[in-house]
Amino acid sequence: MAGDGTEKATVIEGKEWYMAAYAPQGVPSSDHLKLRTVTISLADDSIPDGHVAVELLWISVDPYLRSRMTGHQDGLYMPQFKIDEVLVAFGVGRVIKSKDSRYSEGDIVLNPYFPIAEYCVMPSDSLIRKIDVTAGIAIPDYLNALGAPGFAAWVGIVVLGEAKPGLNVFVSAAAGGVGMFAGQLAKLRGCRVIGSTGSDDKVKLLKEEFGYDDAFNYKRETDYDAALSKYFPNGIDVYLDNVGGKMLEAVLNHINIGGRIPLCGMISEYNKSWKERDGVRNLLNLVGKNVRMEGFLVGSYLNRFQDFLKEMEDCLLQGKIISKTKTYNGIDSFLESLGSLFQALMMEKLSFKSKSE
Amino acid sequence: MAGDGTEKATVIEGKEWYMAAYAPQGVPSSDHLKLRTVTISLADDSIPDGHVAVELLWISVDPYLRSRMTGHQDGLYMPQFKIDEVLVAFGVGRVIKSKDSRYSEGDIVLNPYFPIAEYCVMPSDSLIRKIDVTAGIAIPDYLNALGAPGFAAWVGIVVLGEAKPGLNVFVSAAAGGVGMFAGQLAKLRGCRVIGSTGSDDKVKLLKEEFGYDDAFNYKRETDYDAALSKYFPNGIDVYLDNVGGKMLEAVLNHINIGGRIPLCGMISEYNKSWKERDGVRNLLNLVGKNVRMEGFLVGSYLNRFQDFLKEMEDCLLQGKIISKTKTYNGIDSFLESLGSLFQALMMEKLSFKSKSE
Repeated sequence: MAGDGTEKATVIEGKEWYMAAYAPQGVPSSDHLKLRTVTISLADDSIPDGHVAVELLWISVDPYLRSRMTGHQDGLYMPQFKIDEVLVAFGVGRVIKSKDSRYSEGDIVLNPYFPIAEYCVMPSDSLIRKIDVTAGIAIPDYLNALGAPGFAAWVGIVVLGEAKPGLNVFVSAAAGGVGMFAGQLAKLRGCRVIGSTGSDDKVKLLKEEFGYDDAFNYKRETDYDAALSKYFPNGIDVYLDNVGGKMLEAVLNHINIGGRIPLCGMISEYNKSWKERDGVRNLLNLVGKNVRMEGFLVGSYLNRFQDFLKEMEDCLLQGKIISKTKTYNGIDSFLESLGSLFQALMMEKLSFKSKSE
Repeated sequence: MAGDGTEKATVIEGKEWYMAAYAPQGVPSSDHLKLRTVTISLADDSIPDGHVAVELLWISVDPYLRSRMTGHQDGLYMPQFKIDEVLVAFGVGRVIKSKDSRYSEGDIVLNPYFPIAEYCVMPSDSLIRKIDVTAGIAIPDYLNALGAPGFAAWVGIVVLGEAKPGLNVFVSAAAGGVGMFAGQLAKLRGCRVIGSTGSDDKVKLLKEEFGYDDAFNYKRETDYDAALSKYFPNGIDVYLDNVGGKMLEAVLNHINIGGRIPLCGMISEYNKSWKERDGVRNLLNLVGKNVRMEGFLVGSYLNRFQDFLKEMEDCLLQGKIISKTKTYNGIDSFLESLGSLFQALMMEKLSFKSKSE
């Protein structure tokens, strides 16, 4: 308990990832992101009131992180990590010392801006949730189905996509963090759902595990226009876009009157400066077909977060929605896990556990 | 009156424009649009019941007509004119013979699909309005402020743009048919309004007659990004897009969080096939700034047409909204008037009167 005078080891060592240099283009490497060892004092008087010392358990590895490492504003307009400062991401940790009566040693806590550091001291106000580990939901699901990816899927499909029975829904990067939940949410609402993804294994996963009506590998079916003609003989009513570029352009040739295109992210574009990106040439379709294309960051829909949580927690507990994530073990693996998001252009949902086991 | 047995000249000659050949690209010429002389019988038994014979008075010459002359579907998805058939456009005429008790000889009537022909017989159900010429509104205003351009401006600014005091509004092709009303409607709602247009004379017109706070000539200020930085130090909240292409791309670098971009048309693109169009490379801005970009055709908002009419008629009668149009005289001038829309890329609001005077 906080301030009870019992002291364990007062100084601990831990590794943390920091921004050594910006990576304006391409996939960030060990030139840009570096690991260092730091020491944290757990002495009672070195943790300020209203703070907790926390041991990192899980970090969510998501494409948006890339846009905080370019050194310039890009289209996501997220603040850049500062040079020499520790990186942060959505994470879960265990409280090891508390100077806030609301938190006790052993509590499992969630912070959307968790330092990617084995140990750290953080203001307790930065914690958004204490996780009840007995509730029947696995800890990584708090970063996935119940975290930013699940919430993004819900905003895209439910709020902006207005999914309802019979609609034809297309999801790109469908096996990715957002896509896997988007498809399942659309199916639960009675839609016909098709996904695109980057490998045959993932096509199988989409159809057999995530309940997609059909799916295709965009690396095999490289004529996106022909693929969409085949999979959407009646056109597309809702397109949840996670990739931008050429796939978005192809969709605009197949969108139905009154269609909706929630834009969740554009992973095909993150490693290029905007002038090098694929231009979308057929936006005139938006006019002729009364189409609404709307970008969103989940942070703008926090007023709906409780509605989302209620639905998603019920779905998880009833097994109506499942998740699959690839786990990297150990804090050393962060750079590799981030790189794999982009090298494969698959947008897998990745997490890593702080400790190898 | 219909069926009263009094017969005047029973056969009259008149000219009409027809589609001789499609023009997939470029500005349509006399190879594509041709004039011919036809005869109309006004004999009582040659006009079917429920029809009226009408003399054309005014035609509205608008950019969307171009998209009905390509011979292929483009992004506006408007039906193509048929080869050898008469062209149609929003028009006003005078009834010269009626076989419908609701219409009498001399009535001034409005038809959104008026044949571009000096005389014709049309089903009276195709008439959407009988104009009260004593109401104090000039006949061309029924094609302009109260017609498709005015309604498009109202949908864009009021319905989709949600204009309200203090917002920064940008309108492209601002002296055009839609733009001139869009700016005035936004000013009436307390917005700060800037327009772009294609000549210094039009810049003057926008500032001195249409009440724009400022305006610029995009042919002089060719670095659109620099121009928008100058005119919108606080960013753009609403952009009513009439041009697409490079200007839309520039706007996406200046749009504010939560901004709205109603897409009304893209005149910079109509004479190109879609693969030749300027691609928009920075759509990622829509994601990072929660921007809604929404295309529309006025036909989809007819449920709001009465609200629009009420506001716009009041504004016209009170002199709060004015219009300026360039008039071409005589049916022979149609091709020239259509061509001038695109050659100048100014998107002037044009009408022509059926008879030279």
